[in-house]
Amino acid sequence: MKADIGIIGLAVMGENLVLNMESKGFTVAVYNRTTNKVTKFIEGRGKGKKFIPSYTIEEFIASLRRPRKVMLMVKAGQPVDDNLELIIPLLEPGDIIIEGGNSHFPDTIRRTKYVESKGLLYIGTGVSGGEEGALLGPSLMPGGSKEAWPHVKEIFHAISAKASDGASCCAWIGDNGAGHFVKMSHNGIEYGDMQLICEAYNLLKDVGGLDHEEMAEVFEEWNKAELDSYLIEITAEILKYKDDDGEPMVTKILDKAGQKGTGKWTVIGALDLGVPLSLIGESVFARLISSMKSERVVAAKRFSGPAAGKSNIDKQDLIDDVRKALYASKIVSYAQGFNLLRKAAEEYGWELNYGEIAMIWRGGCIIRSAFLNKIYEAYKNNPELQNLVMDDYFSSILMENSQSWRRVIAAAVTQGIPVPAMSAALSWFDSYRSEWLPANLLQAQRDYFGAHTYERIDEPEGQFFHTNWTGRGGDTVSTTYNA
Amino acid sequence: MKADIGIIGLAVMGENLVLNMESKGFTVAVYNRTTNKVTKFIEGRGKGKKFIPSYTIEEFIASLRRPRKVMLMVKAGQPVDDNLELIIPLLEPGDIIIEGGNSHFPDTIRRTKYVESKGLLYIGTGVSGGEEGALLGPSLMPGGSKEAWPHVKEIFHAISAKASDGASCCAWIGDNGAGHFVKMSHNGIEYGDMQLICEAYNLLKDVGGLDHEEMAEVFEEWNKAELDSYLIEITAEILKYKDDDGEPMVTKILDKAGQKGTGKWTVIGALDLGVPLSLIGESVFARLISSMKSERVVAAKRFSGPAAGKSNIDKQDLIDDVRKALYASKIVSYAQGFNLLRKAAEEYGWELNYGEIAMIWRGGCIIRSAFLNKIYEAYKNNPELQNLVMDDYFSSILMENSQSWRRVIAAAVTQGIPVPAMSAALSWFDSYRSEWLPANLLQAQRDYFGAHTYERIDEPEGQFFHTNWTGRGGDTVSTTYNA
Repeated sequence: MKADIGIIGLAVMGENLVLNMESKGFTVAVYNRTTNKVTKFIEGRGKGKKFIPSYTIEEFIASLRRPRKVMLMVKAGQPVDDNLELIIPLLEPGDIIIEGGNSHFPDTIRRTKYVESKGLLYIGTGVSGGEEGALLGPSLMPGGSKEAWPHVKEIFHAISAKASDGASCCAWIGDNGAGHFVKMSHNGIEYGDMQLICEAYNLLKDVGGLDHEEMAEVFEEWNKAELDSYLIEITAEILKYKDDDGEPMVTKILDKAGQKGTGKWTVIGALDLGVPLSLIGESVFARLISSMKSERVVAAKRFSGPAAGKSNIDKQDLIDDVRKALYASKIVSYAQGFNLLRKAAEEYGWELNYGEIAMIWRGGCIIRSAFLNKIYEAYKNNPELQNLVMDDYFSSILMENSQSWRRVIAAAVTQGIPVPAMSAALSWFDSYRSEWLPANLLQAQRDYFGAHTYERIDEPEGQFFHTNWTGRGGDTVSTTYNA
Repeated sequence: MKADIGIIGLAVMGENLVLNMESKGFTVAVYNRTTNKVTKFIEGRGKGKKFIPSYTIEEFIASLRRPRKVMLMVKAGQPVDDNLELIIPLLEPGDIIIEGGNSHFPDTIRRTKYVESKGLLYIGTGVSGGEEGALLGPSLMPGGSKEAWPHVKEIFHAISAKASDGASCCAWIGDNGAGHFVKMSHNGIEYGDMQLICEAYNLLKDVGGLDHEEMAEVFEEWNKAELDSYLIEITAEILKYKDDDGEPMVTKILDKAGQKGTGKWTVIGALDLGVPLSLIGESVFARLISSMKSERVVAAKRFSGPAAGKSNIDKQDLIDDVRKALYASKIVSYAQGFNLLRKAAEEYGWELNYGEIAMIWRGGCIIRSAFLNKIYEAYKNNPELQNLVMDDYFSSILMENSQSWRRVIAAAVTQGIPVPAMSAALSWFDSYRSEWLPANLLQAQRDYFGAHTYERIDEPEGQFFHTNWTGRGGDTVSTTYNA
């Protein structure tokens, strides 16, 4: 008997993924460079199941049904390239290589081209949901050689997470690096969601004076309405969880956030594409500042904050304001994120289906939420939607929530509580809805010191003017001062 | 007679730089790939001066005194590499190649290594001040092969800008790409300064209701005290300047900001180094949003702003508040920028002299200002200063100005006026001076969904804990979910 698919790499993600595949009725070949891992797996979690263990790469390849499907579940980076060199000579035209690590999309673009040049097909797929997702159903974001998709579609749909309406959280994303780009953007959006929740927690705690029990209840309530999502749900559970001494466990945790780089990649991607992605940017920066704990402890002694807020605050009003500020900010974050996808599609020639992307994030992913259905509907109503905030539902929420949003940020600013992501979201919104911005002065400055020229409001666009601001003259021309 | 130095590339920057050198008494060889440019120059602006024109590259190299100093003033990117291939075979051990374009620092790191491997020396130098600076005195930021510095020092100091105290705005920055990194960071800081001024303008105009004449006077006043700087000075001149119809010229300029990429590089550099550079980040994003003019015009129709501010505002109070908010934000911007330099020095092994860097930006540069003296003094008082805001002068200003800063941002937020850079600065300040930040919740979330583990406040750092938050258990371990 030949295997339906083979996996190289039996670390936790790979192991869970093959168990998932086998549980759906597929025969799976398994191989690992350190071969005693194969033995351990076959005698352990894989015991009595439809696995074909291999102890050499040749044996592994030979055990696969054609066209062969070889999935790499190895560490992103050089190990992927090393494995490609190992297997490419053993494969035949039409065989398919699938790579499921957290690879950076430019690597996947490069590898698709390289593998195709060898007469083979390549898929780089985002796999979201961590270890539990890999085992029970991840969100899958495959991209690469489109001809490969019909051959792996059945397996991918079978193992993927299912949304509450039963739909598979898997769809073909697009050419070459599209799948990994979308996975990266998902992770960036996750940074934003988490930072916004932290800011809401800070506001409830320090402006509202709520204790952790009360805050847990607030998040539980929020999870029943428009904010219904995995991250709000687990926040309620976290806030409730007690340490052995009866204190909330979260109060014992050191406030230094870690990160592994995909948020950073997303912001760099946005800068390269010229997309304002300020909320995720601030979320990455907020993690960095949090990690400067020892400096913060010293600075806290030097800089006293403003006097505390009024104690007669109405808790319920504040809770409502924070909820509305959080939701409005979240809309802006996703609007920025989907703008990033749109610009990437233009730049890299991908045909992305934005509604479908929202749909497949509804299961498996950390950012799964009821909100994603609203995004799906927005793109269903208008597939050419230029910006999510221009959808009727989102527009009306932003208008309804804006007073609360402004009140919360003004209170935070006045009371010295940092809300970088919510502020960035509001600044973006106020800029986006401004017919006029003070960039006219900026253009005048650039023309003054660098003769960069400017356009005029009373002349057609594309005509450039220069003013001799000082009257001193000179034959300076544009293009030299890089400002 | 042999030339003291030779320049390849007679575009405006190169032409102005050689005229500057010649005016200081140096004999300069000039060469340009399109040789009729050489003829044109020698018969035009270069007429009757101590130039040695060359019409072949061999003739050019032969005209130089040893060790030869060849300076490239060609377009950044491939043309630099092409010229290196052209001249390296003609040079002899100990000869020096200088490159003065706006090169990206990783290219300069690479080129220094390459040129040194050929037995030659390399300098990549930042040249700031645009065309006028090149002619009359630029700020120069050379880095690369340190052994080359004694040979070019005299020329560099002679042609550089002089600060008001007569000091040369030129200093050796450090190894390989240090000069271009510092120049890039300077440009990023310039983005921040310009955006802050635009926000101040917006506030004075739309919160304060000042007309352009009044605003010009405000900037003139500001230019006499702590904000004294080139950009404040030219802003006053710009606001005063009238179009033919008597209206302020700046009101006729289209509010779409251009950019050439060095701000973007700076923010990407900060993300790569893990430095929160939020103010410059927002400045880059603000330019991008300004350029989405047609979308903004449509969005403005859909989203009405909050009711206008109270008309009984005291103009002088507002002007003072805006000035203080601007200065406090500027301090944060430079604190972030110098943190970037510190982290880069650590990462790339450069020994940067921060006080000296502030000093050489006092002339030639667009960001020249009285403020840079304060930075110099801060590092003179404490060369190991971890963060500029911890210097006594800057600390006291931040405390003094913070009420105004908070009032201005709260007013802007309430009235719907975008102040992304000022807000980012305040968020950073409020985060930096917070002993506690809500990142404890973020770490709990990461541990919940990805078993990333956390540290505790009541245990030594470096010990990592995991909580089985759901009670469901499982043998998940860290390192797999990239959040």
